[in-house]
Amino acid sequence: MLRIGVIGLGYWGPLVARNVSASSGAELSLLCDTDPGRLEAQRALYPDARLVGSAADVFGDPTVEAVVIATPVRTHHSLARDALLSGKHVLVEKPLAASVSQAEDLVRIADHAHLVLMVDHVFLYSPAVRAVAGFLRRGELGEISFIDSVRINLGLVQHDVSVIWDLAPHDLSIINYLVDRPPKGLVAVASSSGALGMPSVAHLHVDYGGGLLASVHVNWLSPVKIRHFLVGGTRRSVLYNDLDRSEPVKIYDRGVDVTVSPERRREVLVSYRTGDVLSPNVDKTEPLRNVIQHFCECVSNGLRPLTDGAHGLRVVRLLEAADSSLAEGGKYVDIPEGP
Amino acid sequence: MLRIGVIGLGYWGPLVARNVSASSGAELSLLCDTDPGRLEAQRALYPDARLVGSAADVFGDPTVEAVVIATPVRTHHSLARDALLSGKHVLVEKPLAASVSQAEDLVRIADHAHLVLMVDHVFLYSPAVRAVAGFLRRGELGEISFIDSVRINLGLVQHDVSVIWDLAPHDLSIINYLVDRPPKGLVAVASSSGALGMPSVAHLHVDYGGGLLASVHVNWLSPVKIRHFLVGGTRRSVLYNDLDRSEPVKIYDRGVDVTVSPERRREVLVSYRTGDVLSPNVDKTEPLRNVIQHFCECVSNGLRPLTDGAHGLRVVRLLEAADSSLAEGGKYVDIPEGP
Amino acid sequence: MLRIGVIGLGYWGPLVARNVSASSGAELSLLCDTDPGRLEAQRALYPDARLVGSAADVFGDPTVEAVVIATPVRTHHSLARDALLSGKHVLVEKPLAASVSQAEDLVRIADHAHLVLMVDHVFLYSPAVRAVAGFLRRGELGEISFIDSVRINLGLVQHDVSVIWDLAPHDLSIINYLVDRPPKGLVAVASSSGALGMPSVAHLHVDYGGGLLASVHVNWLSPVKIRHFLVGGTRRSVLYNDLDRSEPVKIYDRGVDVTVSPERRREVLVSYRTGDVLSPNVDKTEPLRNVIQHFCECVSNGLRPLTDGAHGLRVVRLLEAADSSLAEGGKYVDIPEGP
Amino acid sequence: MLRIGVIGLGYWGPLVARNVSASSGAELSLLCDTDPGRLEAQRALYPDARLVGSAADVFGDPTVEAVVIATPVRTHHSLARDALLSGKHVLVEKPLAASVSQAEDLVRIADHAHLVLMVDHVFLYSPAVRAVAGFLRRGELGEISFIDSVRINLGLVQHDVSVIWDLAPHDLSIINYLVDRPPKGLVAVASSSGALGMPSVAHLHVDYGGGLLASVHVNWLSPVKIRHFLVGGTRRSVLYNDLDRSEPVKIYDRGVDVTVSPERRREVLVSYRTGDVLSPNVDKTEPLRNVIQHFCECVSNGLRPLTDGAHGLRVVRLLEAADSSLAEGGKYVDIPEGP
Repeated sequence: MLRIGVIGLGYWGPLVARNVSASSGAELSLLCDTDPGRLEAQRALYPDARLVGSAADVFGDPTVEAVVIATPVRTHHSLARDALLSGKHVLVEKPLAASVSQAEDLVRIADHAHLVLMVDHVFLYSPAVRAVAGFLRRGELGEISFIDSVRINLGLVQHDVSVIWDLAPHDLSIINYLVDRPPKGLVAVASSSGALGMPSVAHLHVDYGGGLLASVHVNWLSPVKIRHFLVGGTRRSVLYNDLDRSEPVKIYDRGVDVTVSPERRREVLVSYRTGDVLSPNVDKTEPLRNVIQHFCECVSNGLRPLTDGAHGLRVVRLLEAADSSLAEGGKYVDIPEGP
Repeated sequence: MLRIGVIGLGYWGPLVARNVSASSGAELSLLCDTDPGRLEAQRALYPDARLVGSAADVFGDPTVEAVVIATPVRTHHSLARDALLSGKHVLVEKPLAASVSQAEDLVRIADHAHLVLMVDHVFLYSPAVRAVAGFLRRGELGEISFIDSVRINLGLVQHDVSVIWDLAPHDLSIINYLVDRPPKGLVAVASSSGALGMPSVAHLHVDYGGGLLASVHVNWLSPVKIRHFLVGGTRRSVLYNDLDRSEPVKIYDRGVDVTVSPERRREVLVSYRTGDVLSPNVDKTEPLRNVIQHFCECVSNGLRPLTDGAHGLRVVRLLEAADSSLAEGGKYVDIPEGP
Repeated sequence: MLRIGVIGLGYWGPLVARNVSASSGAELSLLCDTDPGRLEAQRALYPDARLVGSAADVFGDPTVEAVVIATPVRTHHSLARDALLSGKHVLVEKPLAASVSQAEDLVRIADHAHLVLMVDHVFLYSPAVRAVAGFLRRGELGEISFIDSVRINLGLVQHDVSVIWDLAPHDLSIINYLVDRPPKGLVAVASSSGALGMPSVAHLHVDYGGGLLASVHVNWLSPVKIRHFLVGGTRRSVLYNDLDRSEPVKIYDRGVDVTVSPERRREVLVSYRTGDVLSPNVDKTEPLRNVIQHFCECVSNGLRPLTDGAHGLRVVRLLEAADSSLAEGGKYVDIPEGP
Repeated sequence: MLRIGVIGLGYWGPLVARNVSASSGAELSLLCDTDPGRLEAQRALYPDARLVGSAADVFGDPTVEAVVIATPVRTHHSLARDALLSGKHVLVEKPLAASVSQAEDLVRIADHAHLVLMVDHVFLYSPAVRAVAGFLRRGELGEISFIDSVRINLGLVQHDVSVIWDLAPHDLSIINYLVDRPPKGLVAVASSSGALGMPSVAHLHVDYGGGLLASVHVNWLSPVKIRHFLVGGTRRSVLYNDLDRSEPVKIYDRGVDVTVSPERRREVLVSYRTGDVLSPNVDKTEPLRNVIQHFCECVSNGLRPLTDGAHGLRVVRLLEAADSSLAEGGKYVDIPEGP
């Protein structure tokens, strides 16, 4: 039983606490928030958990083996750093940190201390994304031609981070997971609503080389809610629609084949395939439950998580590049190679 | 009765012919195509129309007052030029021409000869787009915050033009019509499938200044067909879904209000509005019928068409800028001011 | 603060307990189930509530003022009877009882004892149904021409009651609420799957006189989930789609007008109206929360609930008539008038 | 080349004429309508066809080998009878005739004269219905548990026939085609709008014995258009949605298994299956084209059509039974056995 403390009881923290509490491999031993009201609201649910108002009390508690950090992004680095330095394993909300240098620092510390550092990129633990990845890995899609992800909604506007840092980590994490090579560059454009002073609508275009473009559209202001994740392959294509509870994943055996005629030089031949559509059954496990379980297993068995610090760092690298691109008016920004 | 000749009987030409023939203000007097089979296929439908195999025969026919040019883009300039120089009024398929200089040339000639030059930007004649524009003009949307247009499908891959020149003219024409100021710049990214050698998936982001970003996603390779045109306004937002036959236009009285607190400096206040959704009744007139009628009226009464040469030129300017941006790896390209 | 005991902790009971606990007007003072495991599962959530294994302990507890009965249908009569005879106000799950005579008995006892008897016909407390009723009451729909309700799903097959007694109470309750006159008769047809030995697919057609037919399709075996409630009016029509989270209620200003020409005798004139579609904003309050609040208010102020015993009895009368119709092979069965 | 005459040029006749004209096995030799305007409208399209104003001219023309009758239902019997007696093969619009006795008369005459009598039950020639039937025939659905067909729309209200005779022939024809045994009985209920004086909303429930219920909901007054055809099977279920152009047929590997425990007598065991959803590719051939081709083949090769007179008669038998059921207030009506 891994003894876990949860720091931050805003929106996500209580969900984490519930899943930790329900997990067979973990014990919710401590809850921490600076707001006494938030703490009290959890007391009746977890009568056995210790409640503290300061993160220092968490780090100083020798019985706590691991912490989940569910606080605003700007605090991730300092809290995760202190947790690691206190010898705790860390699961941190996405994104890992507010800058590449912060993220690199955390990766370094965790590696050095041989502690687990995992980022809660929750979509990688959803059965639907696993199904998409499975089709891709088994070669059923052929080569990826393009990826297009739309995540728009009349969403909860954040005060401290832009829509890019708030929503795009989901898409970028999935895309990095699916594409088997590092991104080369990125173009970002955005629109900022007047008083907010930061992007509330944005498009990111990540260049993975070889003609593969992965685009992400995130938007806090859309009157309609859309979550389309489209992977165009040379053999088949997949649409993952997170809002379609009945058929979240569809594999389309449709496509366009473009070939160059061997006899008649320079002539391009275009043909169309129209086949079946398959919507595989996708189990309904809550992704967050899988996250907690994976974290416990990695700690217990000394394994590297699927979404380890390096994965989280790669996402932060793209987010920071997006800000750079925006700052230069939508310029193409190179992504440095890295872990 | 305006005597009209139709040049080009591929996909679009026969539809134009049918609408010219059915129009009360026009007479289909001549059909032209270099392919005898295509000509023959129309003979039974229009027994009174003259069939010719060469555009020169059209331009030399003094009884023909106006021509519709429904040929590949690369031929638009030369055919429209000759038609205008022969004293014919011209309706040309979108886009107006294959380059800004060609388009400017046509505008100049038409102006000089006092002939009507109109581009078949057919969506501006659809009742749905008119409804969207009506809501905007009456102030019901407030200021435009963003525009997002998605036009993706397993489409007819073109051999001679990219997906940008094939599909984006529709979106750019609508956007230019809705926004009351000229575009300042543009960023384009695209993915090219191997053998085709030109973009089949592309994103255009047009900067209209003042924080207004209009994005266009065109894609020939999508297994699903989507046509979403979203206009986010400060008061209300509109979704025009061309594939929803029952409710193509929806006005959402939903939004996010962001204000800066007057008392507490620097504090941003966010509030959410959730109101009704209205789907206005939109009549079912075929847009192409409206196009032909508008062309006839403009010729008869010496009026300037809604989609005149200048409108078509502005669209071509954006298309050419998109190619420039692509050529420079997604660079922000300034759009020169112009007619 | 009304002190409430909840009897039955299967699927619905825990939801009731949560809403009672969260209600400002009620106090969850007692939980009862014969299964110790179910009781234990609630202990941590409601540390102050008394847990008992027998309903007799509930009825004998003088501090409990009211009970909610969330047990299988066949036990409703006996439990509700004992509760009323012990002087407790009663909120019972739908349907009120397993037969008309049982339901009548409960109504009689409650009336005599001046106690509140309310049935948890939860849809009448949903904002969407309220919106539909509001449009109807304000005359915006004109006269009702027909009602059609579809409630199909791969549902939880019940062992003790047919799909009619399981699902149709929802639809019949809504229909009785909307139509302002008593039903005259009913036809029911059903299909029974082999081993189950009772209807799993059924259609009920309730005749409200004056040509008004209200149809209900309930089905436990449908691979697709549909919840369409359609009210056709002479002026406008309404579709309430409980699964459309964004636009659950739509008012269609569309219809067919049939009139008899005054001049030309016997000639029927048909004209079509096509107008706007309006989806009013519907608040997101949980209906069960409204149910608990209404129950508390009725007890506190001695009011008669919207879904009182008489309402519940009228629903049971239709259910029993449906069984009679089925037993006679789909015969038209008269519905006796009554409270 | 089968020389065909088309009688009746209202809504359906011109579509038939177009398909006859385009068919390689047929020649459109004659068009007939009592309305000169309707005849004229077709002249330009078919310059080689003879135009006549009276059916007698058709029957008297020895060069016409076959006729298509696309006139109002009440005229089917008399026109088809005369055509058969003149030695012409006959393709008649659905339903075959206005009564069972009329339909039987036509079947008798055609059989006696060894002429082809075919009914244009067009849905049996649609690739989607063929796909559904294919799955069923190959045993992939198991046994049919229920069929439910919904065909509702703000439709073209007919003056001479009720919604049952107008729309239900489609559904009844498909159902008879799928179910491999004769119907035993039927219950019908309907609602009639005031001035029209005949049913505009109706439900038919056909009992095929063995617990198999097939239900049909037809409605001219619905503000929403729905065409759902659901076949519940013991192994899999199918939804055919004629309005879903992208995925008209879906096979759901979902269901409920109900078994009786062999050990514990009387205990019913319920289990749920949740598997993939498959939408097979369905070709886009126009069903009417297949109808004409099949008619030509049957005439040429002396074959019995899939939708021969007997098939049409069986549909009329159900329609007449529906009227009988309605006349007796929704009574269960036995269906006599027959060809």
